[in-house]
Amino acid sequence: MADSQEDLLLKIQEQGDLVRKLKAAKDSNERGKGFKEVYNFEEIDKHLSHYSYICGYVPSKPDVDVAKALKSLDFSNYKYIKRWWNHMRSFSDTEVSLFPDFRQPNFLKYNSKKILESQVKEEVSKLLALKAQLVTEDAGPQKFTLKTPKGTRDYNPQQMTIRNNVLDKIITVFRRHGAECIDTPVFELKDVLTGKYGEDSKLIYDLKDQGGEILSLRYDLTVPLARYLAMNKITTLKRYHIAKVYRRDNPAMTRGRYREFYQCDFDIAGIYDPMVPDAECLKVVTEILEALDIGQYILKVNHRRLLDGMFEACGVPADKFRTTCSTVDKLDKSPWEEVRTEMINEKGVSPDAADRIGEYVRLNGSTELVEKLLKDEKLSKVKAALEGVEAIKTLLQYCELFGIKDKILFDLSLARGLDYYTGVIYEAVLTQPIKIGNEEQTVGSIAGGGRYDNLVGMFDSKNKQVPCVGVSIGVERIFSVLEAKLAAGDITVRTSDIDVYVASAQKNFLEERMKICAELWDAGIKTEQSYKKNPKMLNQLQHCEENKIPLAVVLGDSELKRGVVKIRNITTREEDEVPRNDLVQEIKKRIDNLNLNQLNGAT
Amino acid sequence: MADSQEDLLLKIQEQGDLVRKLKAAKDSNERGKGFKEVYNFEEIDKHLSHYSYICGYVPSKPDVDVAKALKSLDFSNYKYIKRWWNHMRSFSDTEVSLFPDFRQPNFLKYNSKKILESQVKEEVSKLLALKAQLVTEDAGPQKFTLKTPKGTRDYNPQQMTIRNNVLDKIITVFRRHGAECIDTPVFELKDVLTGKYGEDSKLIYDLKDQGGEILSLRYDLTVPLARYLAMNKITTLKRYHIAKVYRRDNPAMTRGRYREFYQCDFDIAGIYDPMVPDAECLKVVTEILEALDIGQYILKVNHRRLLDGMFEACGVPADKFRTTCSTVDKLDKSPWEEVRTEMINEKGVSPDAADRIGEYVRLNGSTELVEKLLKDEKLSKVKAALEGVEAIKTLLQYCELFGIKDKILFDLSLARGLDYYTGVIYEAVLTQPIKIGNEEQTVGSIAGGGRYDNLVGMFDSKNKQVPCVGVSIGVERIFSVLEAKLAAGDITVRTSDIDVYVASAQKNFLEERMKICAELWDAGIKTEQSYKKNPKMLNQLQHCEENKIPLAVVLGDSELKRGVVKIRNITTREEDEVPRNDLVQEIKKRIDNLNLNQLNGAT
Repeated sequence: MADSQEDLLLKIQEQGDLVRKLKAAKDSNERGKGFKEVYNFEEIDKHLSHYSYICGYVPSKPDVDVAKALKSLDFSNYKYIKRWWNHMRSFSDTEVSLFPDFRQPNFLKYNSKKILESQVKEEVSKLLALKAQLVTEDAGPQKFTLKTPKGTRDYNPQQMTIRNNVLDKIITVFRRHGAECIDTPVFELKDVLTGKYGEDSKLIYDLKDQGGEILSLRYDLTVPLARYLAMNKITTLKRYHIAKVYRRDNPAMTRGRYREFYQCDFDIAGIYDPMVPDAECLKVVTEILEALDIGQYILKVNHRRLLDGMFEACGVPADKFRTTCSTVDKLDKSPWEEVRTEMINEKGVSPDAADRIGEYVRLNGSTELVEKLLKDEKLSKVKAALEGVEAIKTLLQYCELFGIKDKILFDLSLARGLDYYTGVIYEAVLTQPIKIGNEEQTVGSIAGGGRYDNLVGMFDSKNKQVPCVGVSIGVERIFSVLEAKLAAGDITVRTSDIDVYVASAQKNFLEERMKICAELWDAGIKTEQSYKKNPKMLNQLQHCEENKIPLAVVLGDSELKRGVVKIRNITTREEDEVPRNDLVQEIKKRIDNLNLNQLNGAT
Repeated sequence: MADSQEDLLLKIQEQGDLVRKLKAAKDSNERGKGFKEVYNFEEIDKHLSHYSYICGYVPSKPDVDVAKALKSLDFSNYKYIKRWWNHMRSFSDTEVSLFPDFRQPNFLKYNSKKILESQVKEEVSKLLALKAQLVTEDAGPQKFTLKTPKGTRDYNPQQMTIRNNVLDKIITVFRRHGAECIDTPVFELKDVLTGKYGEDSKLIYDLKDQGGEILSLRYDLTVPLARYLAMNKITTLKRYHIAKVYRRDNPAMTRGRYREFYQCDFDIAGIYDPMVPDAECLKVVTEILEALDIGQYILKVNHRRLLDGMFEACGVPADKFRTTCSTVDKLDKSPWEEVRTEMINEKGVSPDAADRIGEYVRLNGSTELVEKLLKDEKLSKVKAALEGVEAIKTLLQYCELFGIKDKILFDLSLARGLDYYTGVIYEAVLTQPIKIGNEEQTVGSIAGGGRYDNLVGMFDSKNKQVPCVGVSIGVERIFSVLEAKLAAGDITVRTSDIDVYVASAQKNFLEERMKICAELWDAGIKTEQSYKKNPKMLNQLQHCEENKIPLAVVLGDSELKRGVVKIRNITTREEDEVPRNDLVQEIKKRIDNLNLNQLNGAT
């Protein structure tokens, strides 16, 4: 029901768009323009994946018309159209003039006024039918579809337990390194976010102008940190920040990509010696990934100065460094050939320069690669490149001292999307798929970060810089892996940690149960009881088993008369009588024993 | 600077409004309408507090004009205008026709076209001057005022430590009672919030329509819980939820009233026996307030059925119960006389009924009040009232079993603002001001809640109800008290919990320091070092003292040659040599000892 309602609204929107387009085409006097707007190239491409021509078994007038209309089409998305287009171009004008005329197939929205008029009519009536359907579905007592906003979700108790366990482990590592905790508001003045995210700015959630300041939801935790440092004139800080951020992206929720999601950031701000805090960020990532125990990983590292120097050495003009860099960033998802094409066709890099870049970005390794690059004929002439390589050399040396060098891969193809990085950049990647039930899931990138020395200065009235380096842990991917494992039965979680359940075997024991609960609570013991006056014994014990509550206090007439109560071990089903007055002490003793056994069992 | 910029923007806005109004008045053809819009009654009232007439010492034509214009004015805000108005009405038409005509004083925006034109000109030039000023101030590299949005704030590490300590204590109590944790998105479909908050709906933050769903930031955690239960068809749940909520209210930040603030909610959903979960909510509140140790408190309780029955018994029509209830809710801030006036003048309650209500709402007490009300002539005839009193009787009985009856005050003046309560309602109030430095601060209400049995059903397509009862802890007030204590030096907090600092007395020890840090981190020991290659010894020790780091490892050439390192106790300044190879074990031993001493010191 929820989905169908949403589907319906989507259909109405699409149908509305189609009607508007048709009407616009109808109004248009330019035949060619009208054509282009109403052709559905997706459908034509699909059609041409099965058939040689637009209609029939030989080229015809409709082929000519369509071919005329798509002169300026970018074929990269339509490989069947491309094939057909090249074929169509092979005919001479004379041949074309002899093509027969066929009736148009349905997917061709031919811009003859009459056809369009009847089409508009038809599509409008479809739209009205859809809207009528919506009204009918709305008639019930529930006025709207009950759902969370697109790309967001609730966390149920199991999911919260997983989430909190993961976050606790991460916080333990952050604090082990002396990081302090800060928090900032969920929204910022829109101006604070403007000009920080490049193309991604379109993904920012804005708040409605309700007659006050113009606000936007935070997009990450890095820009708010920079604003915080500049606003409070703080020049040194080692902080962590764990909070939700917001991006109007296309969600892929099963893979842990949401519009509202957690970031766990660790950053070191201050003027220090090169690579010392940078190496510690890498150490922090390794400690976190070891603590989470989610499989083998590597930490790819690279340096923005080296990338810039490499572009310079390859003959890319300086004003194209950043945009070329964003293209290199796509190498983790696309093959070099596609990246090369984008560089040349969209970014205006010369084919020669692109090929030279292609040689470099294939390189990865460790100290031996550093040595090789230091001697590289082209790079060694470029100051920025040498600086970058020297920095990586220092970083690798520090990583060796930290005992993590075997986890580091110096990778010249790593570029990172964001504009604000100025020095080392890094990304942690799981190298093996994770087993979930009987299936395997590839997780990929799980943490990333780098140095950004110029961001704080953007907020300072005197442009005073505070150099920063930091890392962000991609916890949503970790959550989604663990949740999938939970669903597959690979792991179990306990959502409450109650130690004692106060039960009664007979009726009219609510008052006594309440007294005992209060005694146990006041002694700090995690205790529960039924909220019913006369619950059934079976239900009470079942509750204990389902919730893995280890102990139950069982009250009964005969026992109370003798001044005793029974303590039941839920797992072993053993019951002991203890004096009513010693109950709290006895329970404490047993909980300590259980914890001790668990500890011993765990080691 | 930040404030003046904001002031300037405010002034520009006000000036712009004035210009718009004047222009509208100028364009208006109806003389009267133009008048009303441009009169500034605040100023006229202020003028009439000093003078008898609008101008001069006798009534004149301007008096007549103004009197005509304000026929429909509500005088309650303008007592001097009211006085003058009554005086003006005492003149006969003949007398009025003989009044002299004077020049208008400045505050009268007389709607003669000429005057208005010159006024518009003048005010526009003022507006332009203000804008020019803004441009000048904008000229620097900082393009906007660096601040957090109105009513929000950052939490610095001290404030976060306080906040996390408070939340940890609260969570401990929630979990002691077996509550599970859930979370929901920060925004909901706007429809989910619509119709749940009565008059307060205007305080909801909306998101901008960016071409998708229409969303609003959550206003509390109760409505999202109800949506969660209905959406997932959950009929029993004991959950806590700690998260930020958003209200476009007038902030009073020093008193802990923000537009973005934390709520800590504990709720029990399910069909149970009367008052059993309700009493546990009260027990939870007492445990939290004891754990936070912020002074003496009482828990006021009342019942919505009793309030309804009371209104009925006093002769209030049923359709005015809710609105009368909101008026009673103001009794904690306003005296009875004012509340009575509002009931009669604004809510349409008869003076007799109001007086009868006044008798009841003065009552508070405990079991003896219950007995008195059960015998009350008027109340005992009304079913709802009897049900309410009986419920309170049961609640008090359960509170006695829980050992918290001495904290409970049955108070007939307690009403609670929100519409959705259906049964017991309660509020925790600190009874003593809190001492901060040399000053005392009154905190007042610190927790509140009640039973809401019909809210979940509003989200269910078949109107299926899930009865709920819950409590919300007002942590922001607690934060603000503790932060004030911190600022006054009454308490101190440690923002990081580093145990060991790795220092070196001489130059060129970065590599050795890094190795030792890694060893300690890998052993799980909270360790820090300087990020400088050659830090000064004094600075390193100072850092330890400032951050209350108990131990330092001090490296030196001569020691390392002998295969030892020094461990320094920062407080006592004692130094010991230990073998380099035993360092991790030795450090662990000392940390255990320190913790043990601290524990013993605390008991």
